[in-house]
Amino acid sequence: MNTVNPSRLVLYDTTLRDGSQGEAIHFSLSDKLRVAKRLDEFGINYIEGGWPGSNPKDFSFFTHLKDLELKQAKIAAFGSTRRAQLHVEEDPQIKLLLEAQSPVITLFGKSWLFHVLEVLKTTPEENLAMIRDSIKFLKSHGREVIFDAEHFFDGYKADKAYALECIKEAEEAGADYIVLCDTNGGSLPWEIGTITTDVLAHCKTPLGIHTHNDCELAVANALVAVKAGVQQVQGTINGYGERTGNCNLISVIANLELKMGQKVLPPGKLKELRELSLFVDEIANIKPNPRAPFVGKSAFAHKGGTHVNALQKVLRSYEHIDPSAVGNNRRVLVGELSGKSNIILKAKDLGIILEENNPNIQRVLNKIKELEAKGYEFESAEASFALLLKKTLSPYPPFFNLMEYHVSIRQLPSKNYKVCEATVKLSIRGERIYTVAEGDGPVHALDRALREALAKFYPEISQVRLEDYKVRIVDSKEGTASSIRVWVESTDGKKSWSTVGVSHDIVEASWLALFDSIEYWLLKS
Amino acid sequence: MNTVNPSRLVLYDTTLRDGSQGEAIHFSLSDKLRVAKRLDEFGINYIEGGWPGSNPKDFSFFTHLKDLELKQAKIAAFGSTRRAQLHVEEDPQIKLLLEAQSPVITLFGKSWLFHVLEVLKTTPEENLAMIRDSIKFLKSHGREVIFDAEHFFDGYKADKAYALECIKEAEEAGADYIVLCDTNGGSLPWEIGTITTDVLAHCKTPLGIHTHNDCELAVANALVAVKAGVQQVQGTINGYGERTGNCNLISVIANLELKMGQKVLPPGKLKELRELSLFVDEIANIKPNPRAPFVGKSAFAHKGGTHVNALQKVLRSYEHIDPSAVGNNRRVLVGELSGKSNIILKAKDLGIILEENNPNIQRVLNKIKELEAKGYEFESAEASFALLLKKTLSPYPPFFNLMEYHVSIRQLPSKNYKVCEATVKLSIRGERIYTVAEGDGPVHALDRALREALAKFYPEISQVRLEDYKVRIVDSKEGTASSIRVWVESTDGKKSWSTVGVSHDIVEASWLALFDSIEYWLLKS
Repeated sequence: MNTVNPSRLVLYDTTLRDGSQGEAIHFSLSDKLRVAKRLDEFGINYIEGGWPGSNPKDFSFFTHLKDLELKQAKIAAFGSTRRAQLHVEEDPQIKLLLEAQSPVITLFGKSWLFHVLEVLKTTPEENLAMIRDSIKFLKSHGREVIFDAEHFFDGYKADKAYALECIKEAEEAGADYIVLCDTNGGSLPWEIGTITTDVLAHCKTPLGIHTHNDCELAVANALVAVKAGVQQVQGTINGYGERTGNCNLISVIANLELKMGQKVLPPGKLKELRELSLFVDEIANIKPNPRAPFVGKSAFAHKGGTHVNALQKVLRSYEHIDPSAVGNNRRVLVGELSGKSNIILKAKDLGIILEENNPNIQRVLNKIKELEAKGYEFESAEASFALLLKKTLSPYPPFFNLMEYHVSIRQLPSKNYKVCEATVKLSIRGERIYTVAEGDGPVHALDRALREALAKFYPEISQVRLEDYKVRIVDSKEGTASSIRVWVESTDGKKSWSTVGVSHDIVEASWLALFDSIEYWLLKS
Repeated sequence: MNTVNPSRLVLYDTTLRDGSQGEAIHFSLSDKLRVAKRLDEFGINYIEGGWPGSNPKDFSFFTHLKDLELKQAKIAAFGSTRRAQLHVEEDPQIKLLLEAQSPVITLFGKSWLFHVLEVLKTTPEENLAMIRDSIKFLKSHGREVIFDAEHFFDGYKADKAYALECIKEAEEAGADYIVLCDTNGGSLPWEIGTITTDVLAHCKTPLGIHTHNDCELAVANALVAVKAGVQQVQGTINGYGERTGNCNLISVIANLELKMGQKVLPPGKLKELRELSLFVDEIANIKPNPRAPFVGKSAFAHKGGTHVNALQKVLRSYEHIDPSAVGNNRRVLVGELSGKSNIILKAKDLGIILEENNPNIQRVLNKIKELEAKGYEFESAEASFALLLKKTLSPYPPFFNLMEYHVSIRQLPSKNYKVCEATVKLSIRGERIYTVAEGDGPVHALDRALREALAKFYPEISQVRLEDYKVRIVDSKEGTASSIRVWVESTDGKKSWSTVGVSHDIVEASWLALFDSIEYWLLKS
């Protein structure tokens, strides 16, 4: 059952297996199923679900697969060649691979003599037999078999003849793809190019490439191999993986599609690239890398005065691709390097038209500078920036005045007693409002008391809720007395906005960000 | 005064100029001076300090330079070729370049016809004259001049003849280096290789390479150009820079020294690579990227069971270099994928010898799993993990019992009154201790009250202080009621240790991390 189309370049994702080896990456079973479904919808050709022989969670992924109703992707189970000195049909790990019932099995085996002798502690001949027996056995059960030649490039550099013998063995045993792995990420692009070209001359089976980022070269190494002629690229979404990570499929896909003319995705899917990247980060609970190529929040952000100035003239002058091709956006940043151009552009985003010689622009720049010195950052708190702009350009009366707040947290472990309570005293349109609320923590309690105080005058406030809440120590060298920056994202179900607060006290910093959030919403309503 | 040695590959750092264009990167003047001093000590050959014509902070960097007493690095001021239709000696930006009095001036100029016509809005001939006049003028004032050919690769692809004409003009005007810039980061490694080789055939002046990471190829592109024959590599520490960042000099240096046999650093300095990377992150107040190649905390961290097992057999089996070559360390991670091997290895690190069949290992694994489900992570909280291990394997009586704590935060904005106070009630060796302290925020106040309570019995506690404090929302989709993980690093001046606490309440989470930190210190003393 060889369903491989050798004329086509395919994408092979191992986020759920190799990716989950990364530090701080944890997927639950339901996480894994959600990611697989999304990768399928996106158009990834192969999805490696896990190693059935390594842990029960990985095995149960495969038993839950039927419920997923995938549209097109093939699911691969990962495992290793049989153990030395053991009949293949008696190897428990190989048995679990069959029991997982995936249409594809990816087997890794040794091709570096050093590993054969020192890690497996077996003979070169036995390793060749392990490759042969394992592939033949799985092929005889009707599976598509992908052979991952672990440490292939190191093996080739150390003993070319033996490394090529391993490839030959896999080919003769019937592997559908043979994947050259730079397992420790130590190879340089020209080495990958030369060695891959040589293997292509020795082997008719379609080849694949599997790289790691230990030298910051994983994407380049994969692209060089594709250019040499391999037909499968393995990697992970956002480059998750052990140590410095695997090859980042996000960047590989964008480069293949936009730079190398390789159509690897179904039509229209490239525009979902950023969304896919954010989705997987969210599932893995990883803060998205703002500098991520193509999909990062900063990937098309312009801060330098010259650039912003030039962008106003010619959009493509400082961009290598149109950001919308990968679902991303151009952003103009406001910061201490900002010139007037940035403020004018930013105000325009907010619907405020400023003439270049408006003296208020300098006042806004001064105010930003003063707040940035305290630890504020407006680059990702656009609502706080809009308020600052509004207050400087056209002051308005406050919606309410805070007279007092008080937070109390009492804990008696021996009595298993804990209470966290906040009181808020406001004046709104001459009326004094005094509320109290409990919460899980001080910020939660304050947030509830504030909303309750405002509900009488602004009942729609019940629709506003916090979407995200982040805390950063601005100067992390002073221990608990450092300045704390709190960033809050709020939503009313239709739109989202971000605000920021800074203080030595985390409760006050949170309060300031909450306050801005609610003021911004009141101003908009 | 041409002091260029054309037979040697030199490193050119632009962290302080191009790097500071990155989102969230802010350097004060004293930051810039500290970074320059450190880069000089490390052995970087050229340090670009800023653009005197763009803002006063950049200019004042150059006036403060004399006090730095650099050992070997040359400082470069950055600027652009003269404006169109203006005599070079009358161009205010060129004048500021001379006034900055740096020995080296790096001038960027256009080599892409599209930019000449659409951004500069001038003629091809005038642009050539701008290159010629500006270089000649600065050379006549005795400066070393580096010409950065902006967007060179795009220019070459669009109009090879004109791009090469710009290079020729710079060469004839006397430039000491001509740097080929992939300004928008859009080129592929083989394009860089082919084009650089062609320019080398047309130009005798030493060439340099300046790349950006928009395609995740900046490091590969720089290395390919070095292999082709350029003699200067430009980049930034940790790859700071606009959009997705500049070429990461950290990875470039490690690859050049360890993989390509290019000795670009003074002897012994490569071992300071990780330290340099962390130093610059700290100055810029950027959280170090744990996955950073060579220098990241995870760069040599092993989690997968197979790998950890193999590492016990042969250290180099899964590592492309010896971590100590760049000042890094091997780490074995404890997490849900951990097998017994990880626990045994980790315990060994802590001086606890466990036999493989010790039934307590399973109890430790269960406890870790239970806490990880609540949001704990032990991978970077090694002291909390040590306590967990100790308590499971050989329980000990507690040093003190917490009876109660109470935190109160009151704020009256109208009266400009604010107080944050914590009380702590403990029992130690049968005695009841009751203390109160104020602080900048609730955690600070609690920390002070706790230390005061313990000081009577453990006076050395005054030497323990917090070094770092980080907060992470574990599930950021529930607003202020989400679980909060607090990570604390403490030191007694000699050693550092890290602990973790998780709760819905940030104050309680902080308390748990502080508690572990102090308990760990008491246990060690």
